Formats: sequence, structure tokens, C-alpha cells
Amino acid sequence: MQLVKKPVTGMKDILPAEMAVREYVLEVMRKTYHSFGFVSMETPAVEHLQNLNSKQGGENEKLIFKILKRGEKLKLEEAKEEADLVDGGLRYDLTVPLCRYYSNHANELPMPFKALQTGDVWRADRPQRGRFRQFRQCDIDIIGDDSFIAETELILATSTFLGKIGFKNFTIRINDRRFLRAMAAYCGFEKEQFDTVFIILDKMDKIGPEGIKKEMTEEGYPAEAIEKLLGMFEKITPDKAGILYLKELLAGELEAGVADNLVTIMEMAAGAGTADFKLVFDPTLVRGMGYYTGPIFEIGIDEFGSSVGGGGRYDEMIGKFTGNPVPAVGFSVGFERIIMLLMESGFEIPDSPEKKAYLLDKRLTDGQVKKVIDTAMSERTSGLEVAIAVMKKNKKFQKDQLNAQGYAQIEEIYAD
Amino acid sequence: MQLVKKPVTGMKDILPAEMAVREYVLEVMRKTYHSFGFVSMETPAVEHLQNLNSKQGGENEKLIFKILKRGEKLKLEEAKEEADLVDGGLRYDLTVPLCRYYSNHANELPMPFKALQTGDVWRADRPQRGRFRQFRQCDIDIIGDDSFIAETELILATSTFLGKIGFKNFTIRINDRRFLRAMAAYCGFEKEQFDTVFIILDKMDKIGPEGIKKEMTEEGYPAEAIEKLLGMFEKITPDKAGILYLKELLAGELEAGVADNLVTIMEMAAGAGTADFKLVFDPTLVRGMGYYTGPIFEIGIDEFGSSVGGGGRYDEMIGKFTGNPVPAVGFSVGFERIIMLLMESGFEIPDSPEKKAYLLDKRLTDGQVKKVIDTAMSERTSGLEVAIAVMKKNKKFQKDQLNAQGYAQIEEIYAD
Repeated sequence: MQLVKKPVTGMKDILPAEMAVREYVLEVMRKTYHSFGFVSMETPAVEHLQNLNSKQGGENEKLIFKILKRGEKLKLEEAKEEADLVDGGLRYDLTVPLCRYYSNHANELPMPFKALQTGDVWRADRPQRGRFRQFRQCDIDIIGDDSFIAETELILATSTFLGKIGFKNFTIRINDRRFLRAMAAYCGFEKEQFDTVFIILDKMDKIGPEGIKKEMTEEGYPAEAIEKLLGMFEKITPDKAGILYLKELLAGELEAGVADNLVTIMEMAAGAGTADFKLVFDPTLVRGMGYYTGPIFEIGIDEFGSSVGGGGRYDEMIGKFTGNPVPAVGFSVGFERIIMLLMESGFEIPDSPEKKAYLLDKRLTDGQVKKVIDTAMSERTSGLEVAIAVMKKNKKFQKDQLNAQGYAQIEEIYAD
Repeated sequence: MQLVKKPVTGMKDILPAEMAVREYVLEVMRKTYHSFGFVSMETPAVEHLQNLNSKQGGENEKLIFKILKRGEKLKLEEAKEEADLVDGGLRYDLTVPLCRYYSNHANELPMPFKALQTGDVWRADRPQRGRFRQFRQCDIDIIGDDSFIAETELILATSTFLGKIGFKNFTIRINDRRFLRAMAAYCGFEKEQFDTVFIILDKMDKIGPEGIKKEMTEEGYPAEAIEKLLGMFEKITPDKAGILYLKELLAGELEAGVADNLVTIMEMAAGAGTADFKLVFDPTLVRGMGYYTGPIFEIGIDEFGSSVGGGGRYDEMIGKFTGNPVPAVGFSVGFERIIMLLMESGFEIPDSPEKKAYLLDKRLTDGQVKKVIDTAMSERTSGLEVAIAVMKKNKKFQKDQLNAQGYAQIEEIYAD
């Protein structure tokens, strides 16, 4: 039977040049996050469908790759609905599996548990440029710490990592879900309208205040509420002062401590980072997932104008799963996006080992080949990357290929 | 809905202590293999069912986790057989995907292509101790080199890697599939009997010559052939002399060059390795997979009495897939087995960074916390792993936990 050569729809083969960058970035990431006390963990790619469909996954629950039951359990002729055929699926994120893992192993884990996950996830999304049905997610989460220290450490760890792989001049925007609710209530929106209000608000940096006004008006929201909301944003500065202004304005709506907590996070992270980044308050930041309960953040790289990561606090999620509430906060970097940006900018891996290639004439004696192998072995031990290949007829092409792979030094060995 | 806490049947959560060892071993592996000129590559976890069922996967083809078609393509009410519901599955090895990858990208890849893959595979095996339905495979393959240099490099790379993670005193056994066929023919077995003869022969180290004799007799093979085969093994030494003895004995059955090629591989690898290992000729070595065409090898660690890897030449496989024959040879290490051995022997990761923890009194002022964070940041920059946590009521337990995680230095910070 002939082979199907292309990968399955929407998934991709990764070529060696990209793999080298991926491995470099992952290694820097691991080392950096470990230096902040995060420990690596892993869950299986396959997860119980029941867990995946727990309503915490939002839209992703519609995108699950489901796996056929095995063996006797599969009775095709009797199957009436899909659920009779499947009981597992490929995970669509690392957060649902983290909650399962934590509830399964809490006794064996340190407290707080600072987790690092770098695993593939699968979503049956409509394939499009730069968006694949299998992709790598890289999450850090802190479970069991309800203090601002957790948010501060996440921000510092993530910014340090991005700085180490060469990103400069990026911005981490920060907000709190409770600010959003208080603002909406203060302006006079109804509680049932909040979710839609936030979805529209989230588009601020794309469509601007005029666009927001238009969309909210089309939803039929009162003009007065819309004006009040947009008027408020004009007066909020993207810093500590902006937070304190809102604290006073929303005093009647906002839980005590929310504003001060956000100010503290900003003060703690400010100046402590080793990378070149700005930390700003953005009251229009929403973040899509419904499970966030407190501070939320998003990283943008100014020159690319797009998000390369985000996260937030989700203190209620583990409790909803397990009946045992535990505070949790996470930060995820957009690994695939970062790799794409690096590949497009011609990123060169720093401190790569020197590469040397030997091309062997076919007529060499065994003794001569053995000499080359022995030399190569000692060069490898001393840190070089050494390739040995039989010389091809088209030697020029072979050497060009080796050059392209980074073999600057090519030695041709001929029979005496 | 309550969460299912355990992982899906037969798959496992990996705890931080094991993850640290896995990451260390993978990093040493990558660096070592890269130093031999291997480049990393990756294929999606999901593969076309048509490729997985190509008859190259042997028994593994019965163990495929199949994935439900998505969207309109899934018509449950009209489905008559399984094939109407599924078109993809999780890969059960890395060799079938490698062939697809190579045939898809040959023009973009160096020649010879020296590939390193370290990816998960899935098999719906009956779960048992130390055997999981998701596990990591680590393969190196050389595509496009038909010379003994390829085998030599695979043996040297693999043994160097094992030596670097601390394995000593291991044995790489080597044979050639063509020897096996020539021996069986020479002794008078029928061609149709070869496969079963090899399956029985493969058990030599477990059941000994008496066991072999018994099983072959039960199969109804002629006593004369059995005696001839077993008698032959008594005279073969596990070295170059053994190969040359067989070369002469089987002159009428063996293709020219097979014996000399094996001798050359042994001579090239002997003494060149940096690790402490023996390379021996073992005429009873079979290796299960049907696709091997030439030299085959297997690594055993004497003190554990079990295989931790193996491989061989499969010059016909890519041609069967693509219609375009290309020589290929691969070597796979048993990653999960290696990790289990290391974990059981109390392996300590060499050159781990120093670990320091700060425990913060809850009453610290923001200014005091900020000072700790700033100190931690500069310690992290200088190479330490530093954790910051709020002091718990049960401080002793918290400190014991931190000690268990390797935090030798714990500093308690109290309010002034």
C-alpha cells in the first residue's frame, strides 16, 4: 500500500532547523523556571472525556479529538450515540489535566505547588496559517498560594524567560476580573449583560472607543451606561495612579483589597525584572476564559503587535472539580507564536558548538577510516559536533548542504 | 460534575522527581547525539490509519488508539464498520512516521539524514508493571548511508550516551539477519519454517539449548536440523573469530560481504567508544521486527539482565512505503526502562544548581517582601534555584518538604 506522505490535516512535521530553535527555547525556559522554584510535571496526552467536558474548557470542549474505546467495550452495532463509542480524548489544554493531577497527587506534592508543564495539546480547529491542530503549550502555575507573591513570581519568571531568549521592549498588561465587574455595575449594566460587555470591551485595542460604542449600542445597551464606561477609561492612567483612581471611584462596588493587591503586584514586579519590559495597568484587559477570578495578565510584544502569552488567577476551578477549594494562578506563554517570531527574524542559537564534517573517499582502507573515527570521537568528547559521511559523486552539492547545516569546517579524506 | 482523579487506564502522571531525571537524561541524550551529527525532528502524534496499518508495524498494528473523524465526516447512523468512523490514530512507534516524514521532505533534508526523535508513542497493550500505554521512545536513524559507517556511528553514539548517564559494564550484541537465514538454510530448515525457527532461537538466553531443542521438536522440525543448528552454536565464539568461522561454514548460503561487513563494524567500534562496554557477536540474536534486512543489535546491561535498547538495518522499508528504495538503519534506547533503572538505583542528577528557599512571615511589610524578591532575583541570575513562599502555621512540615525537594538552605524572614 502506498504511503500518505503529508501529515494528517492541520498537524505538521517539524524540520531540523526549527527543532533546534524549539529545543533551545525549551531548555532556556526550563532552566529559567526551575531557577524560580518551578518543578516539571507531565500528564498523559489522553484524558477522560468526562474531565474534558467539565465546562471549564469553554469553546475548546467543542474541539476535542475523541478516541475510540478499545476491545470488547466497542460494540459498533449496538452504539446509539457517540458516547457509546468513546471515553477518552486528546487534551485541549494543560489546565484541566493539571487540576486532575493535583487532586490525584496533592499529598505527594510540595505546598505551594509550583508546576511547569511543556506539553502538546490538540484542538480540531479550522486549520489556518500559524494555527495547528497539535501545538505545544508551556504553562507555569502556582497552586496553594493566595498572596500577591504568586502573581509577582509568575510575572518575573515569564519576563526573565522572554528576556533570555532575546525579546526586548515587551509589555505585560495587568487587570483584575473584579475590576471589570465593578466597573460594569458602576456604569449601570445589568449582571446578565456583563459577559457580553466584557467580550466587546476586550476588542478595545483593535476597534477603539468608537468601535466599542457602536457594538454596545447594537446590543441595545443604554447610551448612558456606554458613555459612562468609555468616559471612565479616558481618565484612567495605565499605572498605579490609575488603579487608585478606580479604587476611589468604585468604592461602593469593589471588594476591599482588590485595588491594593494589584498595586502591590505592580510595585513588587517593577524594577525587579531582569528583562526590558513595561508593566502596565489596562482596565480593558479581559482574557477569554470564564474561570478567572482575580488578577489577569497578558504579554504583548510591541513591535509585533500581538499577544505572546497570558494568564490569571483561577481560585475556584480546582474546588469545582474536587469539592476542595484551593487558590491557583497560572501564566502561559505562546510557545508556537514565539518560535514563529524567532524563525521569521532569523534567530541564531547562541553558543552553539562548533561543527566539523569529514567526507571519506570510498577507497579508504579500514585502517584509514578507523583513524578518522577515532579522531572524531575525541573531538566529540571535547565538545565539537562531528559528522562523518561517505563522499558522494556530487561532492559540491554535498558540501553546500553541510555548509547550510552549519558545518563550517569540512575535511576531505582521500586514500593514500 | 466530579472529576475523575486517576489518569486514563494504563497511562501515568509523572511526578516532579521523575520528571527531573527524565529531563536530565533527555538533555544528555540530545547533546550526545547532536555531537555525532544527528539532528532532531518531530512528527505529529496523530498519524494516518492507512500508514499505521501498512503491515510494517507487526503486532503493534493491533494496538492502535483510533481517533474519531470530526464534524460532517462522522455519520454515526450510517456507519457500517469501524473504518467509517475513524481515519487517524496515535502513532505506536517512531519508525513508520519517520518513513512518511522522510518521503515528504527528502528534498529539504541532508543526505545522509541522521535523525533523532524523542517522542511519545501509544499502544493499547494490556497494562502491567513498568509497561504503559503511553511511553517515550528515543530513536536515532541514519537514512541514505549503506556503509558500515552508519552502524558504527549508531553503536558509538548510543554507547557514549549510556556511558554519560552512568551506565557501565554493558554489552552490545550484534548479528546479521542474513546470517540467521543462511544458518537455517545450512542446517536444513525449510524457508517457510524460518520465521518460527528465529522466534524460538530468540529465546536462547532465557531457555538455553535444551529449551530450544524441546520447542523445535514440538514444532515437528527434523531432529537432524535441530542438532546441526545447536551443534553449530557450540563452536561459535562471540567475536571476530566466530564471524569468520561462520563465514567459511556458510560459504554456500551466505551472500558475499555479509561476514566481512560485520567484522568491520566490530573493529571500527571496538576501542573507539568512550564508555565501558563490550561489543560481542551473538548468532542467536534475532530482534522481533520483520523489517530488518542486515546487521541487528541489542544492548543489555549485565547487572540488570535485560535489554535497554536495540535496532538494525531496514533497507527495504522506505522503498516499500514510497516505491523509492533508500538504505536505512536505526538504534532505539529503552527510555522508560532506563529511567526506571535510574529511579530505582537512587540516581542523583550531577551538577544540579544549589537550591535556596525563603519563608516569609505573613506580617512582613511590602518593603521587606520587595527586598527578598530583589535578593532572590539576583541569586537566580547567578545560577541558584530560589523559591519564595509564605510561612505556614506548620513550619516544621513546610521545611521538611522543602528539604525533601533539595532545598538545603532555608532562610526565615520575620517582620522587624
